[in-house]
Amino acid sequence: MSYPIIFDTDPGVDDAQAIAIALRHPEIELLGLTTTYGNVDINVATRNALLLSELAGRRIPVAQGAAGPLVKPRHPAPAHIHGANGLGNIDLPEVHGRAEPIGAAQFIVETVRARPGEVTLVAVGPLGNLAAALQLDPGIVEAVKRVVIMGGSIKEGGNVSPVAEANIFNDPHAASRVLTAGWPLTLVGLDATHRCVLSPADMDAIAAGQGELGAVLKGSYAFYREFYQQALSIDGCCPHDSCALAWLLRPELFTTARGHLSVVTEGDAAGQTLFAPEGRAFIDERWSRTPLVEACLGADGPAVVQWIVDTLK
Amino acid sequence: MSYPIIFDTDPGVDDAQAIAIALRHPEIELLGLTTTYGNVDINVATRNALLLSELAGRRIPVAQGAAGPLVKPRHPAPAHIHGANGLGNIDLPEVHGRAEPIGAAQFIVETVRARPGEVTLVAVGPLGNLAAALQLDPGIVEAVKRVVIMGGSIKEGGNVSPVAEANIFNDPHAASRVLTAGWPLTLVGLDATHRCVLSPADMDAIAAGQGELGAVLKGSYAFYREFYQQALSIDGCCPHDSCALAWLLRPELFTTARGHLSVVTEGDAAGQTLFAPEGRAFIDERWSRTPLVEACLGADGPAVVQWIVDTLK
Ligand SMILES: [Ca+2]
Ligand SMILES: [Ca+2]
Repeated sequence: MSYPIIFDTDPGVDDAQAIAIALRHPEIELLGLTTTYGNVDINVATRNALLLSELAGRRIPVAQGAAGPLVKPRHPAPAHIHGANGLGNIDLPEVHGRAEPIGAAQFIVETVRARPGEVTLVAVGPLGNLAAALQLDPGIVEAVKRVVIMGGSIKEGGNVSPVAEANIFNDPHAASRVLTAGWPLTLVGLDATHRCVLSPADMDAIAAGQGELGAVLKGSYAFYREFYQQALSIDGCCPHDSCALAWLLRPELFTTARGHLSVVTEGDAAGQTLFAPEGRAFIDERWSRTPLVEACLGADGPAVVQWIVDTLK
Repeated sequence: MSYPIIFDTDPGVDDAQAIAIALRHPEIELLGLTTTYGNVDINVATRNALLLSELAGRRIPVAQGAAGPLVKPRHPAPAHIHGANGLGNIDLPEVHGRAEPIGAAQFIVETVRARPGEVTLVAVGPLGNLAAALQLDPGIVEAVKRVVIMGGSIKEGGNVSPVAEANIFNDPHAASRVLTAGWPLTLVGLDATHRCVLSPADMDAIAAGQGELGAVLKGSYAFYREFYQQALSIDGCCPHDSCALAWLLRPELFTTARGHLSVVTEGDAAGQTLFAPEGRAFIDERWSRTPLVEACLGADGPAVVQWIVDTLK
């Protein structure tokens, strides 16, 4: 089985781990990295995407995308979590390659159209690039194989507000467009990713197997780990973005449900993903009018982490 | 230990069970019932409150209150859940007593002011009466002993929308006023009440111990149970409103956390209670600016149900 994917990302410490998986796993065919602001500014995101593939000895197309949200003002990048350089403020080598001449949205459209029915979009940052691709060519809804989103929270609560997860919060209008577009979609949110904790020992095993790239993964992990210790009293880090790839290749490690998603775009709950399970009646039908999607409600955390380590060690 | 309470209610099948507890439990001094629309129209709520205390052989003051929400239009009463008469459409005896000449909000203010520091308000319907009492006399914030609310949901999801519980959804503006008033407050929401299921055998034991009142509790339970079977595939009913009294008398059966509540008043998440745990930092401080309250995050369901049965059998 082979999975041709475009990986849409704002690297980001946990993005870097997921990019390493996408570069390494024998069943993933990485067609390109598309970049967005989010954990970092857009130019930093693009630099990191180029760097990470070069460190793995690969030349993967990188197409730059959104520098900010579709509608709302941008929050500053969370430098206390990912570092100002997105990779824990460690010293980074020079980058040699350059981004594609076309932007992320156009890259997505052209790549999907070149292989109809084959390409899976895996998006692990704010969703502006996918929204822009839908604006350019709404017909990609039928041309993609699947869309896998790391984002949102059904019952787990949020990580940037009491109810909102960061990727959705960062651009709720884009998320609303993307999550209700009617394409085959799986949401891998905090209900799943918070079950997974990558320990320092896990990271040591990963670093040992990843050469130059491993040193960057390990160094950035150390910075990210401090945040988890101080803010959440967890020793280790949730490998959020890797969970989207874990779902794609090992869906049996997750529990999912079918239902209708809507995204709150305004007010104190902005960025929240509302999930109406299929067939469940509420006081009116407005929550059940969006297309059916699949949402993760849980995960076998240790098994997902083991899959990550086995892939990268 | 004695607990002087005012019980604010929209009876309602599970309200009736809770009223029976308030009438029966030796440690509860029931100072009055204040009524609100919600499960039923306001005149039906008042009739049921009078009836239930008469069936228990008691003459408890009943003060009528809100006929609708503070701000938003009213949803019709959910006759498919509680019956058009609020008590499962069973035949009901005549009522002999009458409501107090003063309304619910004034009754609350006068009763609290007559016994400063002693009275606990237990509210198990939409919160318009408590909001109106705060409008008449904001100083009751310091004069009550405590406020216990059956309503809301922190991580459990909603029962009338994917995220909203019915009492808060029915009047989110009143709920916002009441939950952020700064009085000592405990929220007993779906995270606790959904852990509790009152079985048909439990209801048989209750009915056997409650005489004429027992027949009404049992008959109305049978109707309510059908809703639970059809809509939720549960054999039995969640005794939501009794949980507020269970928390008051047996708080050790619940797990709670301190934090800041806000209520979403508009949009697709309207009626949701947002809970920011004490000391937890989010992307900005707006969710942590409201006064600290206590919220139930879980309950020992079987022990709560046993307490209900032991009280009423
Ligand atoms: Ca990311
Ligand atoms: Ca009630």
